[in-house]
Amino acid sequence: MSKLIGIGVGPGDPELLTLKAIRVLEKLDILLLPTGRSGGESEAYHICKEYIPELVSLEKRYFPMTNDKDMMMAAIAEIAGEVKSWTLSGKTVGFVTLGDPMLYSTYGYLLKLLRDEIEVETIPGITSFGAIASGFNKQLCEGDTPLVIYPCVDDLKELDELLSTQKSMVLMKVYKSFERVKALIVAHHLEDDCLIVSNFGKASQKVYYGLEEVNIEELSYFTTILINKEV
Amino acid sequence: MSKLIGIGVGPGDPELLTLKAIRVLEKLDILLLPTGRSGGESEAYHICKEYIPELVSLEKRYFPMTNDKDMMMAAIAEIAGEVKSWTLSGKTVGFVTLGDPMLYSTYGYLLKLLRDEIEVETIPGITSFGAIASGFNKQLCEGDTPLVIYPCVDDLKELDELLSTQKSMVLMKVYKSFERVKALIVAHHLEDDCLIVSNFGKASQKVYYGLEEVNIEELSYFTTILINKEV
Repeated sequence: MSKLIGIGVGPGDPELLTLKAIRVLEKLDILLLPTGRSGGESEAYHICKEYIPELVSLEKRYFPMTNDKDMMMAAIAEIAGEVKSWTLSGKTVGFVTLGDPMLYSTYGYLLKLLRDEIEVETIPGITSFGAIASGFNKQLCEGDTPLVIYPCVDDLKELDELLSTQKSMVLMKVYKSFERVKALIVAHHLEDDCLIVSNFGKASQKVYYGLEEVNIEELSYFTTILINKEV
Repeated sequence: MSKLIGIGVGPGDPELLTLKAIRVLEKLDILLLPTGRSGGESEAYHICKEYIPELVSLEKRYFPMTNDKDMMMAAIAEIAGEVKSWTLSGKTVGFVTLGDPMLYSTYGYLLKLLRDEIEVETIPGITSFGAIASGFNKQLCEGDTPLVIYPCVDDLKELDELLSTQKSMVLMKVYKSFERVKALIVAHHLEDDCLIVSNFGKASQKVYYGLEEVNIEELSYFTTILINKEV
């Protein structure tokens, strides 16, 4: 029954783990812990560590968060090779991921390299934007309105058009791009339809109900803006 | 501590309940069960019933699923009145919802009527599309690609444009509109990028890897199409 299991652990609160995630964590041989900085800590591990048996072998690996896709894919390919050899030697290997594993997660790249090579199972997780919407009693979308999830990690080339045509949006990873995102939101007169949350569910959480309040020094990589013109 | 608690129970598998949902279910006085047909069963209840103590009072209410918004809002306003009177008499009232409560759920309308009147707490749930993506090891989106969630419940007026400009989409509630959706997918040559799932996670689940295989008689209201041009 050796395989790779990708496990979504949700955005921060251990109570948002699913029963399935917990059952699976308890039967692992090896847990691969992704870190975004060399020598850094795995945030996903901190969310679920109380459910990981002591006998599970923890293997921390550095997944570079970089715009250099070749460098990133080379690092992931090397880790995929390790995962493959572990599973072929009979081990069940877990990979924990913040939020949901199928939504902008490094796990997706690992999955593509391995799903035709070894058995892979994936456990979904609560998304950051879903948890924020519930946490603030603010609907993401209703009726026949589409919901657009937009990662603010690159050139934002479509964001202007989407802000003008869409009613319900989630802007994820608003961090380095905050000033440009802010300018677009102001241009579309959406200042009053925004909820801005940095590090949701963590001790360092910051919430802003308007753009002018934002202290850019406090914004983390995990900054999310919910926009809903209808509610 | 009386309040309304909206509880996402996920798409079908009880193992996809969160620890928080289970903890909250165990402390309710009243559980409001939405049904989509008069006299029908609550699917959300079946997912979580093993965690509901016997002493919890079950109150089934009919939430009409209709395009007549006035009729729908009148029914919801009446139920909101009941919830308000229960909470004012000291009861903790739960409302279970399939998937996530903030994403196309009737709960959203109830929430809007009550959140300024009584205390309301909301617990997020695993979405159907997140669970389907994990269940089939198919990424929803990656990198800087937006993800568009599109409910196929109305005139599909934006769908043509979105299918031409977007790489990653989730089409929800593809049911009455299947033939029109199919024609648009074929027009955009996306047949091979589709995964079609009806009643995910239930005994009646059907999976199709192409449009031509679909037996329209088998499609349920809960039919989802994942489109990803990149993976």
